[in-house]
Amino acid sequence: MQIIITGGAGFLGQRLATALLTSSIGFEELVLVDVVLPNKPGPDERVVCQQADLTEAGVVQTLITARTGIVFHLAAIVSSHAEKDFDLGWIVNLDVTRQLLEACRQQQPGIRFVFASSLAVYGGALPAMVNETTALTPSSSYGTQKAIGELLVNDYTRKGFVDGRVLRLPTVCVRPGKPNLAASSFVSSIIREPINGETAICPVSEELPIWMASPDTIIQNFIWAATLNGANFGSCRTVNLPGIGPTVREMLDSLERLTDKATADRVQFQPDEAISRIVCSWPVAVDSTRALQLGFSVDDDFDGFIRQFRASSKA
Amino acid sequence: MQIIITGGAGFLGQRLATALLTSSIGFEELVLVDVVLPNKPGPDERVVCQQADLTEAGVVQTLITARTGIVFHLAAIVSSHAEKDFDLGWIVNLDVTRQLLEACRQQQPGIRFVFASSLAVYGGALPAMVNETTALTPSSSYGTQKAIGELLVNDYTRKGFVDGRVLRLPTVCVRPGKPNLAASSFVSSIIREPINGETAICPVSEELPIWMASPDTIIQNFIWAATLNGANFGSCRTVNLPGIGPTVREMLDSLERLTDKATADRVQFQPDEAISRIVCSWPVAVDSTRALQLGFSVDDDFDGFIRQFRASSKA
Repeated sequence: MQIIITGGAGFLGQRLATALLTSSIGFEELVLVDVVLPNKPGPDERVVCQQADLTEAGVVQTLITARTGIVFHLAAIVSSHAEKDFDLGWIVNLDVTRQLLEACRQQQPGIRFVFASSLAVYGGALPAMVNETTALTPSSSYGTQKAIGELLVNDYTRKGFVDGRVLRLPTVCVRPGKPNLAASSFVSSIIREPINGETAICPVSEELPIWMASPDTIIQNFIWAATLNGANFGSCRTVNLPGIGPTVREMLDSLERLTDKATADRVQFQPDEAISRIVCSWPVAVDSTRALQLGFSVDDDFDGFIRQFRASSKA
Repeated sequence: MQIIITGGAGFLGQRLATALLTSSIGFEELVLVDVVLPNKPGPDERVVCQQADLTEAGVVQTLITARTGIVFHLAAIVSSHAEKDFDLGWIVNLDVTRQLLEACRQQQPGIRFVFASSLAVYGGALPAMVNETTALTPSSSYGTQKAIGELLVNDYTRKGFVDGRVLRLPTVCVRPGKPNLAASSFVSSIIREPINGETAICPVSEELPIWMASPDTIIQNFIWAATLNGANFGSCRTVNLPGIGPTVREMLDSLERLTDKATADRVQFQPDEAISRIVCSWPVAVDSTRALQLGFSVDDDFDGFIRQFRASSKA
C-alpha cells in the first residue's frame, strides 16, 4: 500500500511524513510530492520525494496508481495568496482537488482521501459558536475554494468513488521558518520571531481570540482521520478539528511567562486592515463535540504550544 | 443592453422570455440559448434564438459580450440525470457555470448574474425548518453541483466580477409537457396527466409534503431578482424563494375538488425507492423570511397552481 502526501514539502507535510513512519499504519511506500522537491524525512527507504506541479496536464493522473491506499491532500494556495491571485487559487485549490478525486475514482474506488480544509469556510454574520450545521458563507476565495473541495470530497464519497475525510483545521501555531502568505501567518510570527530574538508585527487587535491547534495535535488528528472507520462519520465526512481560543494578549502573556518581558516586547502592533478583515471573519469559537466524539485530540493550553515549538526547534 | 437566458428552450426559460418582453426591464436584445433551438416566444424582434452546446470549447466565451447586461443561468442537468450521468452533471452544472462567470468577468465586471439553484442543496439530517443559515450537506450530485455554483456566484460577486443573485427554487408545479429526469418530475405528473385524461404514477407516500411554487410566481421572482439593488442582499446573495408545502394527498384533494373523482383516481401509487430517497432528503419546510423581506412573491394555495396550469394549457 502506498501513501501520498500532496504539499509534502510544506511544514505539515514534512511533520506528517515523519509521524507516519512510526505510526501504526502499515505501508510499503510514502510519496511526498510538491512543486519544490520535498526534503527526505530521515533514512527510511519507504519514502519517495517527488518534485511535480500538480497543475500540469497528466501529472495527477500518473501520481495516483492502483497501489495508492491513502492520499493526504494538503497542497493549497493559502488565504492571502488566493485572494491576490484569484486564478491560481481556483486552479490549485479547486481543479487539482477535483483531478485528484477523479484520478482516485479511475484507479480504484475507495482510496482514503484526507482533505485539509479550513475554518475560512465560515464567514459573514456568524453565530457565537459554529459547528458542522452552520452554513458556509466564506468571505475569501480561499474559504470558498475549501468549501467547494469539501462538497466534492463528500459527493465522491457518497458515490463510493473515494473514502473521504474532511478536516477543518484551526490555525496551526507555532509554525517554524518564515512568514508565508496566509492571513494567519502572524499567529506564529508573534511567538516564533521573539523567541528567535527578532521583532514581529501583529496586524490585529490584542483582544482578538484565535482558534488554534498545535502541530503535534494536528498531525495526530490527520493520522487518526486516516485510520477511522468511514462509517463512524455518518452521512457527512466533514469535521471541525478541536482547538483552543486564546486571545493575542493571552498568547503574549504566555510568551512572557515562559521566556521574559524583553522577548514578549519584541511584538509590535501595526493594524493591517486587509489581514484584520480576513481574520475577523473567521469564527472565534468552534463547537468540537463531533470531533471529540469521533476520537480526535485537543491541546491543553497555549503554554504547551510554546514548549512544543522550543522542543522541536532544538531537535 | 442584452439579456441572455441559458436553458432558453426549457419550460422556465420560455416563460421567463415571454414575461421579460412585457416587463419593466429595458433591453435591446434577448438571447435564448440551449442545446436544442429554443422556440421564439412571439414576433418580438428583440428575441434571438440560438442553438449551442455551452460545454463546447469557446461557446461560452463568444456568448457573453460587452453588450451583455443580465444573464439568467437556468441551464442544468437535472437531479436524477446528474445522479445517473455523474460526469455530464459536473461538466454542465459546474464547469459551464464557472465558464459563464469567468466570461462575464472578462467582458465587463458587474453583469447581473441570476443563478437558478435548488433546495436539493440541502440534505442529510435537517432541522424541522431550514433557512439560509442551515449548512448544505446535499445528498445528490445535482445538489452538490448547485451548492458549488452558489459558492462560485457569491465569490465572483464579492470580488466585484459579477453582480450575482442566487435563487433556490422550490419544486415548480405544474409543469406542462412530458415527465423529465428530475426526481421531482412526478409532482407535476400527478396533476397534469390526470387533467389530460392519462394515468400518472406517484412514486412517494401520499403523506409527503412537497415545497413548491407555481411557474407564474417563479418567473415573477426571477425578474424581481434581476431588478433588485444588489446591496439589499447583504453579504450573501443566496435566497430561498418562498413556497407552500402541501402533501401529495392535499394536492390530489385539490385536484378532485377542481375536477372530479375520476380524474384524481388516475393517480396510482407505486413506491420508487430511488426517487423517494432523493425527494425525502429535501427539506419539507423552508423559512422564507429573507425572501419576503427582499420583496419576493409567494403563492396563496395549491388550488391556484391547478387553475394556473389549466389557464395556460388553454392559452
